[in-house]
Amino acid sequence: MSAEVEFRMLLTDALQKRDREMLEDLLWQLAEQRRLHAVLRELEPGELARLAEVLGDETFGEFLAELEPSDAAEILERLSSAEAADVLEAMAPDDAADVLSRLDPAEARQILVEMEPVEAKELEELLSYPPETAGGRMTPAFVALLPDVRVDQAIAALRKVAEEVETIYYAYVVDEENRLLGVVSMRELVLSPPYRTVGEIMERDIVKVRATADQEEAARLLVEEGLLALPVVDEEDRLLGIITVDDVADILEREVTEDIERLGGSQPLEIPYTRATPVYLWRRRVGWLLLLFVAEMYTGTVLRHFEQELEEAIALAFFVPLLIGTGGNAGSQVVTTLVRAMAVEGIGLRDFVRIFPKEFIAGLLAGAVMGAAGFLRAEILGVDPAISLTVGVALFCIVLWAVTVATLLPLLLKRLGIDPAVVSSPFIATLVDGTGLVIYFNVARLILHLY
Amino acid sequence: MSAEVEFRMLLTDALQKRDREMLEDLLWQLAEQRRLHAVLRELEPGELARLAEVLGDETFGEFLAELEPSDAAEILERLSSAEAADVLEAMAPDDAADVLSRLDPAEARQILVEMEPVEAKELEELLSYPPETAGGRMTPAFVALLPDVRVDQAIAALRKVAEEVETIYYAYVVDEENRLLGVVSMRELVLSPPYRTVGEIMERDIVKVRATADQEEAARLLVEEGLLALPVVDEEDRLLGIITVDDVADILEREVTEDIERLGGSQPLEIPYTRATPVYLWRRRVGWLLLLFVAEMYTGTVLRHFEQELEEAIALAFFVPLLIGTGGNAGSQVVTTLVRAMAVEGIGLRDFVRIFPKEFIAGLLAGAVMGAAGFLRAEILGVDPAISLTVGVALFCIVLWAVTVATLLPLLLKRLGIDPAVVSSPFIATLVDGTGLVIYFNVARLILHLY
Repeated sequence: MSAEVEFRMLLTDALQKRDREMLEDLLWQLAEQRRLHAVLRELEPGELARLAEVLGDETFGEFLAELEPSDAAEILERLSSAEAADVLEAMAPDDAADVLSRLDPAEARQILVEMEPVEAKELEELLSYPPETAGGRMTPAFVALLPDVRVDQAIAALRKVAEEVETIYYAYVVDEENRLLGVVSMRELVLSPPYRTVGEIMERDIVKVRATADQEEAARLLVEEGLLALPVVDEEDRLLGIITVDDVADILEREVTEDIERLGGSQPLEIPYTRATPVYLWRRRVGWLLLLFVAEMYTGTVLRHFEQELEEAIALAFFVPLLIGTGGNAGSQVVTTLVRAMAVEGIGLRDFVRIFPKEFIAGLLAGAVMGAAGFLRAEILGVDPAISLTVGVALFCIVLWAVTVATLLPLLLKRLGIDPAVVSSPFIATLVDGTGLVIYFNVARLILHLY
Repeated sequence: MSAEVEFRMLLTDALQKRDREMLEDLLWQLAEQRRLHAVLRELEPGELARLAEVLGDETFGEFLAELEPSDAAEILERLSSAEAADVLEAMAPDDAADVLSRLDPAEARQILVEMEPVEAKELEELLSYPPETAGGRMTPAFVALLPDVRVDQAIAALRKVAEEVETIYYAYVVDEENRLLGVVSMRELVLSPPYRTVGEIMERDIVKVRATADQEEAARLLVEEGLLALPVVDEEDRLLGIITVDDVADILEREVTEDIERLGGSQPLEIPYTRATPVYLWRRRVGWLLLLFVAEMYTGTVLRHFEQELEEAIALAFFVPLLIGTGGNAGSQVVTTLVRAMAVEGIGLRDFVRIFPKEFIAGLLAGAVMGAAGFLRAEILGVDPAISLTVGVALFCIVLWAVTVATLLPLLLKRLGIDPAVVSSPFIATLVDGTGLVIYFNVARLILHLY
């Protein structure tokens, strides 16, 4: 019996017995194994409604917040609008907005109508920013104080709202028009004399982000400045919400996934892989595949150009995949390391004089080893010694050439203002393939002529 | 005049004038541009000592903490042992230990001798754990309380040590033998009646990590549980230190870099790229390069096996790079997306029935497009129509084959307990190259025979 079926049976059983503790336990296990969505989607609408009822909206909302927003939306769609509204009300506003934005617009409107007017309005405001922006990520559940509030009053206020806000470790100080003036941390409040005002002790030099800024910018800022939360403002500096540190892992993980997918030579997916349809996958990939194909087409032209050499020594053809493969691999090694170092260590074209000699010397060493290996391989295959020599010399040159191209290209692209991450492994391999062949056949001409 | 030289002059000037504000301003600008190390290393030992003196040990230590530990060590080496000891004393213990561990052991010992005994002992304890472990990352600057301390006493205690500890948002509750009993957050302290004890209000269900655990495990745990700090314990559950959320970004960034370097087909670098020597780079890469070379060698055998077909229709050779290149690209696209999804979305072999049909259909679509493109390309090059047909059909089969291999391999590796991240783009390309040729020449045999 598969683990999936087993869990399903336990769940049905616990649902029938209305065993809340058992249900919570099961769902946490599923959430940890990232199988929560797979199991929830199999439940009948009636079972799902009962689950929400037994767990309570608060707890059920917590589980939905564990899922990808699009997955949570799929589950929510199968409840009635009134039930869905209750669950969303119990969720943190930023999580609720994420889920709501993934629903069919008509359905989302229907649910908003069923919600309490205050909470519906809050969500509508959040939904007015695209999900990839700081505004789409923020939560309005923060603490704002006027500057003349005293420290002891501020602490009392924080206590009172502690259950409803996302963090009580920062309180933001605003003027009557809600413009951001400063921030006080719980640390400062606890350390300050109770009779002082927050306006006196607040930090005025605030790190903040515009609601229209990219969510990645907000995440980077939060991490770099070591903050627990970052205020989000509109163009008139009015405080709209905050982004907290627990959102950051999510945002950065998505960013890394995009980089990795790009390195593999596709358009990054915009939805989780498990939800991608075959046609979606195909559309994300076929463009790059065709582009690389067109770029690679010139290898055919190169080979036809050297048709005579090939006919005279067909053995030359035996080594074509080995040579261009090795060139591509050598280039790929450099490019992935360098592009990443450019992002993390801030390397640019101005570091050229430090980077290039380093890669060139490493390339010389690698070229020498690979050249020797190539010569040996050709000898073992028992071809003409002149061809073995050709393979060895060509491999040396191709590796050096691949390393040179792979070092220069990302640096030049960055200089031109293009993200060097577009230089994927397949891209550099394609670039080196044809030029590598030109090197190979020219070396062949030279050496075979000498014999 | 280059920006580097300009900064150098401004710095020299500010040093001569002993202008502390100007110096701080300059160094922050350099730190933001990640050029701090490059400039500091160019200073004379005398200038460096003066810089530390004018800024004060505290501020100078803050700048050193901005650098990579190995870079900071390089700077520190150029101060006298006594000066270095003063700077390290002013730094956070975990940062100081990171730097100290990168120094020459004799030099490190010399500096420890010059330090205050209490602080030297603390550092020696931290240094007893390898830098990649939770123990090597932790700081001993945390707040520990006995369970019978009252809430108001606890808040008073936190106030008193606020300047010296890494976080005042958590206090850890320990018994007389320093064994971890629970944790109270500042939030809970502020919200609880002052006369209760921390033992009564503490959370007993503590997320913690062993000092010997990998630092990545600690970072993941911190992020997943949404904590601001994570306690580090020894095998007898005694509290040794904490890891705070500001260390996490650093740790996770390093981990992602390793994954990306692996995807490019090299051993991950263990030092920053800017500090890697050519020989180091070469050693990290040449192993994989040779391994891939050996794996690729069979393409030569395959081609020699089909020597007769090649001699009869030399035009077949024109398309070899195009065919194997496209196969490699198609495989690389699948493998990077899938391996990442396996890490992030927890996909495993049990999801085979969902994953495989999806990739197979996407592969069918891609194969059809690429087959048509291949046929067209061959027609444009003006080869025999039978060869054009061969190229088209072979491309369709090769793309489908590459997609199948790239889908199955990571799933099988994970099943066998091997990290699927070893399947790099170069690896999958190598695997597909030779098998793709076998497909190509068999299709050729079939079709050319029919004509």
